[in-house]
Amino acid sequence: MSALAGHFYAVGVGPGAPDLVTLRAARLIESADVIIVPRSENGQCSLAHETIRELLGAQEVMEHASPMTRDQEKTRACWAQMAEFVCERCGRGQSMVQVTIGDPMIYSTCAYLMELLSERLGGKRMHIVPGISAFQAAASRLGECLTLQEDRMTLMPATDLEAVECALKSCETLVLYKAGGCLNELRALLEKNGALKQANLVCYVEQDGKEVLRPMMEVAPDFKPGYMATLIVRMGRREWNASGTADQ
Amino acid sequence: MSALAGHFYAVGVGPGAPDLVTLRAARLIESADVIIVPRSENGQCSLAHETIRELLGAQEVMEHASPMTRDQEKTRACWAQMAEFVCERCGRGQSMVQVTIGDPMIYSTCAYLMELLSERLGGKRMHIVPGISAFQAAASRLGECLTLQEDRMTLMPATDLEAVECALKSCETLVLYKAGGCLNELRALLEKNGALKQANLVCYVEQDGKEVLRPMMEVAPDFKPGYMATLIVRMGRREWNASGTADQ
Repeated sequence: MSALAGHFYAVGVGPGAPDLVTLRAARLIESADVIIVPRSENGQCSLAHETIRELLGAQEVMEHASPMTRDQEKTRACWAQMAEFVCERCGRGQSMVQVTIGDPMIYSTCAYLMELLSERLGGKRMHIVPGISAFQAAASRLGECLTLQEDRMTLMPATDLEAVECALKSCETLVLYKAGGCLNELRALLEKNGALKQANLVCYVEQDGKEVLRPMMEVAPDFKPGYMATLIVRMGRREWNASGTADQ
Repeated sequence: MSALAGHFYAVGVGPGAPDLVTLRAARLIESADVIIVPRSENGQCSLAHETIRELLGAQEVMEHASPMTRDQEKTRACWAQMAEFVCERCGRGQSMVQVTIGDPMIYSTCAYLMELLSERLGGKRMHIVPGISAFQAAASRLGECLTLQEDRMTLMPATDLEAVECALKSCETLVLYKAGGCLNELRALLEKNGALKQANLVCYVEQDGKEVLRPMMEVAPDFKPGYMATLIVRMGRREWNASGTADQ
């Protein structure tokens, strides 16, 4: 599948390993006229940009700084500008790919851009390509089966501890994103709920030389995991019973 | 990454489109000595086998029938036999890839084989490669953002309606697998909970000529979606508020 003239593609490139990109994503990136990559805060190459470096040749690469703020107005204004740019270029017949780490439909800022574009470009000229999300790469690296049979898995940010405690009681597997900012609070919460032994921390998954895979029991209180760390808590199993319904 | 002699790889190949395979999966499949593919019930090629057809050349392809039964004993016996075979071949220095539709860590029968192999092969000779799960492909095809900001997403089978009703109340996005067997019961449940309008059904996602994407409101009572259909229900949003915590 080559990128079509005048079309826009939101493309997930997986967790950061260049070979965890899908064949479809690779072909679209290789064939598009313009590639939009996130700009890193510190002036270095972003992880998404690094991930696709081997696929870049003659394409125009445009860095886009997404606002690292929770101010909804500022975020929307910034993406409105980008939407303007995309519509102008697509109108001139260029093919455009926006790359995003992970999967575009899972906690990705490209949702804002797509919302704006869907009004202006129309659905037929917009495409989304799924990517491997960090939790999947983390589970694979840990060898931790996320769900079997009747299991329920919940994925959420670790930031609201009250909501995390609720979720612990209503699923077999809990996956927490952004666990890095409140690791000691999470440890206390897991211990209180008898779940500390079943928790594994994954930082910088699939990133060469930086990856950390560690049971939460062995994580030192002063360990700095990076904001984007993932915590996987395997609470239990909901197996089939003889009647074919769930047996808790 | 080429497949190493004496190593075993559980490889996810995505939802069924050959180009939604990752580069890593493709290279491992191309380079392995033996490929284990699921055998379909009806004697035809399985979806996983079809998905990787273009990557097959001189490799030995072994079809494996996994028991379509909820009898745990039978399932384990069947996989024990396969584990025996894998260990014997790996012991002779062959590289082996087991392919699985979707992601090996998400409702995949290969979990049984991996559990048996981990005791016998040891972790260093076993590898898992994540794949795009059907819910991700479904969300991308629908253009339905699964999670943003503080949203919680729960993934579960649709088979236990009581558990489904509970889940509807404790997440922003509910993804139901195996929705095909109880579609009318699900419709009634969603209607009762004021969620019918936010539900979309996806069948045979990314399968050429067979794919169905449809709002549940428009699904006829006699529609036969196939057992593996996915239902995505977007209940609401949990946005950041000014203090940086979740605002329901």
